[in-house]
Amino acid sequence: MHTFLPKRMYRFRFFISLIVAILVISICSVSDAADPLPSWNDGQAKERIIAFVAEVTKEGGPNYVPSEDRIATFDQDGTTWVSHPIYAQAVFALDRVRELAPKHPEWKDEEPFKSVIAGDREAMTKFGESDWEIIIAATHTGMSTEDFEKIVKQWISNAKDPRWHRPYTELVYQPMIEVMDYLRANGFKTYVVTGGGQEFVRVYAQSVYGIPPEQIVGSSVLTKYEYRDGKPILLREPKVFFIDDKAGKAIGINLFIGKRPYAAFGNSTGDREMLEWTQAGDGKRLMMLVYHDDKEREYAYGPAGGLPDTHVGTFSQALMDEAKKNGWIVISMKNDWKRIFKFE
Amino acid sequence: MHTFLPKRMYRFRFFISLIVAILVISICSVSDAADPLPSWNDGQAKERIIAFVAEVTKEGGPNYVPSEDRIATFDQDGTTWVSHPIYAQAVFALDRVRELAPKHPEWKDEEPFKSVIAGDREAMTKFGESDWEIIIAATHTGMSTEDFEKIVKQWISNAKDPRWHRPYTELVYQPMIEVMDYLRANGFKTYVVTGGGQEFVRVYAQSVYGIPPEQIVGSSVLTKYEYRDGKPILLREPKVFFIDDKAGKAIGINLFIGKRPYAAFGNSTGDREMLEWTQAGDGKRLMMLVYHDDKEREYAYGPAGGLPDTHVGTFSQALMDEAKKNGWIVISMKNDWKRIFKFE
Repeated sequence: MHTFLPKRMYRFRFFISLIVAILVISICSVSDAADPLPSWNDGQAKERIIAFVAEVTKEGGPNYVPSEDRIATFDQDGTTWVSHPIYAQAVFALDRVRELAPKHPEWKDEEPFKSVIAGDREAMTKFGESDWEIIIAATHTGMSTEDFEKIVKQWISNAKDPRWHRPYTELVYQPMIEVMDYLRANGFKTYVVTGGGQEFVRVYAQSVYGIPPEQIVGSSVLTKYEYRDGKPILLREPKVFFIDDKAGKAIGINLFIGKRPYAAFGNSTGDREMLEWTQAGDGKRLMMLVYHDDKEREYAYGPAGGLPDTHVGTFSQALMDEAKKNGWIVISMKNDWKRIFKFE
Repeated sequence: MHTFLPKRMYRFRFFISLIVAILVISICSVSDAADPLPSWNDGQAKERIIAFVAEVTKEGGPNYVPSEDRIATFDQDGTTWVSHPIYAQAVFALDRVRELAPKHPEWKDEEPFKSVIAGDREAMTKFGESDWEIIIAATHTGMSTEDFEKIVKQWISNAKDPRWHRPYTELVYQPMIEVMDYLRANGFKTYVVTGGGQEFVRVYAQSVYGIPPEQIVGSSVLTKYEYRDGKPILLREPKVFFIDDKAGKAIGINLFIGKRPYAAFGNSTGDREMLEWTQAGDGKRLMMLVYHDDKEREYAYGPAGGLPDTHVGTFSQALMDEAKKNGWIVISMKNDWKRIFKFE
């Protein structure tokens, strides 16, 4: 009995440890299964996402969607990453003007280059569409698609946002990354549908969002098939080919995907038609808009709800009214998001 | 023993049957594994496809390609299905002219409609680009994308080819279907890259080729976001948006896929740049051209190799010379394909 008891005790302890381990694993699994969106606070927005996924994946249910039709589209700037005070791609363009300036001495006296080189922030905030067109042409075209990819890759690995002092690719919204992961885990194919440059976003979308190049729908310039040293290249030309914004988002979705999304996420008037187009389909659809009402942790702008107006990702009162009327879910960054960035 | 022997015999027979069954299953499996392309005759074309797949999928090998980069592009007309004497989509357009004619009495006196309505084959074979533009505008535009889909769906389910008296969707080349299946089984994503209409091909590509709408790259018209009874539609406008032919195929591949193919299949001068663009990438690539040299079982045209000239899927001598120079594999329909159609 002397040797028997300890052995029995040992077995008993082992048994208890096993039970504890099983319990811990079960709790973790239950907690994972119960909360696929841990960076979201409990509330209507989170509930609606989870209810939507449950409905469209329930085989035999009235709103079941076969997996090949499960398409979700995400705007990028202001929806999946920070777009204030100016778009990351605009920062890229301005950085590139300064980098190219030594080769263009005439830019010192030519607007809009002059203000960029002088670092005149006041003047730059007033740049209109034609100024940006000149800047985009000078910085985004005249090279092959392969060279452009290299240039963007280098910039995106080095550039840092002035507020958080982090790469732009870290300024992605963790709650939206969780939504993307959650949708993909439920058979959805996720797309970026951005007013920004298709070839710009393609460079980092796989590593940042887990979204491959063929699932990036964006704005583009014309390309021309040419030869350099006997090898074919695609030369980026200073001519707009497609603007993937506003009605262009519905057009782009039809052109590139050929299927109507079941879920669409945006944050500004540029996303209105994408949400409207999504909702116009049959069955259950999910339309969501990120509302930037968190000055402390990110930015606050509208002008909807009396927040400061902006040209960068405008959320108008008309859009807010339409969202309410149509049942589109407005995500309050302040209230709905427990955590905004992964690094927090 | 009287009852024992029959039972033993029974067991023995059962045992023999089992062995035979296992042998049959094994032989079938081995034969399947050894021949993923049963409709191909043994020869260089078949060997090269199999060798290519083995090389790019061999982990650790010098030509290994990660699965996310395994892109294969297929031209459609003349490459995956019959395109002679005229393209199926052209037949659709002509059928539709006749269907719409009662609503357009003026067409009786207006070319090119007059010849179409009169069934003047001689005149129709002489139609130039501008005639076809008028016909395409009259038959492919002015309706919503959804209505166009319905029209194509109905036509494709009813129309029959005059030679085989079968739906066009049965006139697909079984050897190419096997190549698509074989590539997909080896981690490839397969795309149609066609000079034909993107929205036309999307209607049947899933059921015919196993290729979903988002993997169809083709020519397209402008669409306009509009409202009908308060609901948004995309109206097909009589303006060309993109021509996915010749250099347009390389441009379209970059635009829609954003990755360079590792394998490309074509049959005519319209596919030259797609193959050139494919080959210009690093590592092992597979470029193939279908050569229609089988008058008995399908059609014979070139003019390469002295076959009759044609405007529909021209395989010029210059293309043949380039193929030889660049190591592109020319598939002889007559010699390389054991079976052309599934219904044979």
